Amino acid sequence: RMGVPTPKQFCPILERPLISYTLQALERVCWIKDIVVAVTGENMEAMKGIIQKYKHQRISLVEAGVTRHRSIFNGLRALAEDQPNSKLSKPEVVIIHDAVRPFVEEDVLLKVVTAAKEHGAAGAVRPLISTVISPSADGRLDHSLERARHRASEMPQAFLFDVIYEAYQQCSDYDLEFGTECLQLALKYGHVNAKLVEGSPDLWKVTYKRDLYAAESIIKERTSQHICIIMDTKEDENHVGHHLEEILKNELNHVEVTSGALCPAGRDLKQIILEQCYNYVCVNVMSSDFEETQRLLNMLEESNLSIFYPVVVISVYFLDYKSVHFDQKVENLMQIREYAKEVRKRNILLCGLLIYYPQDEQKLQASLREGATIITTLIKERNSGLVGQLLIA
Amino acid sequence: RMGVPTPKQFCPILERPLISYTLQALERVCWIKDIVVAVTGENMEAMKGIIQKYKHQRISLVEAGVTRHRSIFNGLRALAEDQPNSKLSKPEVVIIHDAVRPFVEEDVLLKVVTAAKEHGAAGAVRPLISTVISPSADGRLDHSLERARHRASEMPQAFLFDVIYEAYQQCSDYDLEFGTECLQLALKYGHVNAKLVEGSPDLWKVTYKRDLYAAESIIKERTSQHICIIMDTKEDENHVGHHLEEILKNELNHVEVTSGALCPAGRDLKQIILEQCYNYVCVNVMSSDFEETQRLLNMLEESNLSIFYPVVVISVYFLDYKSVHFDQKVENLMQIREYAKEVRKRNILLCGLLIYYPQDEQKLQASLREGATIITTLIKERNSGLVGQLLIA
Repeated sequence: RMGVPTPKQFCPILERPLISYTLQALERVCWIKDIVVAVTGENMEAMKGIIQKYKHQRISLVEAGVTRHRSIFNGLRALAEDQPNSKLSKPEVVIIHDAVRPFVEEDVLLKVVTAAKEHGAAGAVRPLISTVISPSADGRLDHSLERARHRASEMPQAFLFDVIYEAYQQCSDYDLEFGTECLQLALKYGHVNAKLVEGSPDLWKVTYKRDLYAAESIIKERTSQHICIIMDTKEDENHVGHHLEEILKNELNHVEVTSGALCPAGRDLKQIILEQCYNYVCVNVMSSDFEETQRLLNMLEESNLSIFYPVVVISVYFLDYKSVHFDQKVENLMQIREYAKEVRKRNILLCGLLIYYPQDEQKLQASLREGATIITTLIKERNSGLVGQLLIA
Repeated sequence: RMGVPTPKQFCPILERPLISYTLQALERVCWIKDIVVAVTGENMEAMKGIIQKYKHQRISLVEAGVTRHRSIFNGLRALAEDQPNSKLSKPEVVIIHDAVRPFVEEDVLLKVVTAAKEHGAAGAVRPLISTVISPSADGRLDHSLERARHRASEMPQAFLFDVIYEAYQQCSDYDLEFGTECLQLALKYGHVNAKLVEGSPDLWKVTYKRDLYAAESIIKERTSQHICIIMDTKEDENHVGHHLEEILKNELNHVEVTSGALCPAGRDLKQIILEQCYNYVCVNVMSSDFEETQRLLNMLEESNLSIFYPVVVISVYFLDYKSVHFDQKVENLMQIREYAKEVRKRNILLCGLLIYYPQDEQKLQASLREGATIITTLIKERNSGLVGQLLIA
C-alpha cells in the first residue's frame, strides 16, 4: 500500500502526473484500505497538491528515505501500530507497489494478496525479454543464464504484514542501502519463499522517456474506446447524422459507439457520462447553432468527468447548400472558438466539424467518411493544440 | 549483417514497416558492405516490396529458419564463400542485429566491430531494469540475482566471421532449437569470451504493443527537430512573418528553426531539403494565394524527401481586416483541400493556417502565439487525418 517516489512519477501524461494514474488504479480497488505514499521532503507540497487536485482518497504520506528500502521501511512503520500519532491500523497483508507502474489491475493485486495470505509473500513476475549475462571483472562474458529458467521480478508484491515488517527490522544497513528486492528480504530474514504470480505486460516500470511515450499512448488508446453520439433526431430517422453514426460504427469496430439524447431530461446521457465515456460527438439538428452543444457542455462540466482525463467534444454541423451560404455558416460557427476557450479551462477539448451535404449520394458518403476520419483523429490525438478549430469535411 | 524476422518487424510506423527503419539505420553506415535479411517464405514477397518501395541498398535475402539460430545460420551460410551462386564475399567481421531494434547508431556498431576484431566477439549490454529471480519447480522464489552483477544482453553483436560460423557448424540441434544467445555459442564452441559494450537505452527491442507506440513517438520526435520557414520578404524586414519566426524560435528552444527562400533559384532551400528537414512553414507574402506553396511543394516532390517520413507543410496566410473580408478569404483558401489531396499521395501532409492580423499589438501577439501552437501541434502529431484543413489562429 505504498509507492516509492522517483522524479519520473511527477512527469505529466496528458497534463496529469504519472503518480496520480497509479493512485487512481489502486483507489479503484475497494478492498485496499489505506494507501501510504513515501515522498521526499522537497516533493511533499507538490504531492499534497496532486492529492487535492485529483481528489485522491485513503492516502497517507510518509517521508521517503534516501534509498528505496528505507522508503518502504518508513511506510511499514506508519502502518505498524506501535507508532504514536498514527491514524493507520496494522493490516494483515500489505501490498508494495511502484509509483511508476500505473497500469496495475485489480486482478493481479488480488492474486498477490491471496498468495501472500497462503505463503507469507508473493510477487508478480514476467518472462525475461533479453538474455541475462554475467560479466567478468574485465568486462567480458563470463556466462549467460538460461532465459527460460529465470524471470523478471516486477511489482506489485504482497506480504503478511508481520513477515515483511520483521524482515525490515532485522535488515542490515547494507541491505537498506544496496538491496532492491523485497522478496529477497522476506526469504533472507523471514525464511519465506515467495509465491511467484504471472503478471501482464502492462505491469512494466516506466523507466525511460520512451516508457512515458508508451504510457501516454496507452492512456490515449484506453480513453478512446467509447464514443457517444448525441443526437435529438427522434422524429427524423433518415437524418444524415445516422449515416455518420453508421460509418463511425463500421470504421471503429473495436470502439463502442453509443447514442444519447439531450432530451427528455438527458437521462441516458447522464448514465453514459457516469460510465466514463470521454468522447462526445454532438450532432446539431436544432435551429440554434450552439444550443445543443452548450447543453452537453453544461452536463459534462457538472459531472466532474474531466478531472482525470481530457474529454473530447466534437460539435458537428451539416451544410446544406440549399439553405445557407458556406461563408456565412463558417463565420457563424467561428464562435465555437470562444466556447472552446472557456471549457478548455475545465479540461474539455471542443472542436467544430462542418460536413458538406451535397445532393450527390456518393459525394455525401465521401464527406461523411472524411468527417469520420477527422473525428477519430481528434479523439485519438486528444491534443489541446487544436481546440476551437472548425474543421471541414 | 542480418536481421531475424518476427511478425512485429512488418508493423507500420507512420505507414512504413518497422524493418525498413532498421535497414535504413544500417544502410547509413557506409562501411557495412552487405546486409543479409532472413525472411520466411510467406513474407518474402512483402519484403521484396519493402526493399523496392524504400529503395534499400546492399540487401540480400535468405530464407529464415524455424528458430532464430537457424535463421542466423542461414545468413552466415550465405556470406561464407563455400556456397554456390553466392554473390556475397566472406567478410572479416559479421554483425548480428535484430529487425526490431530500429534505433541502432553507427557509434555502437563501430564499438562492437572494433571489439570483435580484437576479442573475436562482442555484444551490446544494458543494465537490468528489474531484478532477475530464479523460481523453484513449484513456482516460488528460489533465489534472486544481484542486479549490479548482471547485465541484459542486447543487440548488435559482432564476431570474427570464422569464429561464429565455425561455432554454428559445431552447434547441436538442441542449441539451434532452444538457444537464444550468440555470444554463448562463441564461448561454448569458439572459447571466446565476448567483449561487452555498454549500449544506449535506444537499443531496446520492440517487443510489445507499447514498444510500437514508443517507437512511433521517438520517430515523430526526431522528425520534428528541424523546422524550416520559407519566406520571401527580403524587402520587408518588419513583415509579421518574422514575428512568427521569433515566437517559434522562442517556444521551441530545442528545435532548429532555419529560414529559406524560394527565390532566387531556391538554392538555400535545396540545401535544407538535402539535410532532411521534414517540416516546412510557408509564409505567403506574394499576391497569389498558392503560388509560393505550390513552388515549395514542387521542390519537395522532386527531392524524394518524403519517401521515408511524412513531410509536414503548413501554408500560412495573414488576414488583415483592412484589405479583405474574412469569409471571402476563407472561401479562397479552401482550395488548399485540393492541393492537399494531391500531395498526400506522395506522403506530404499539407495544412493551411490563417492568422488574424488585428491592429492591436497585444492581440496580434496572441494570434501569433496561437498560430505557433497550431504549427507545433501539427508537426508533432504528423497525422494525415487533418490534411487539407484550414486552421485559424
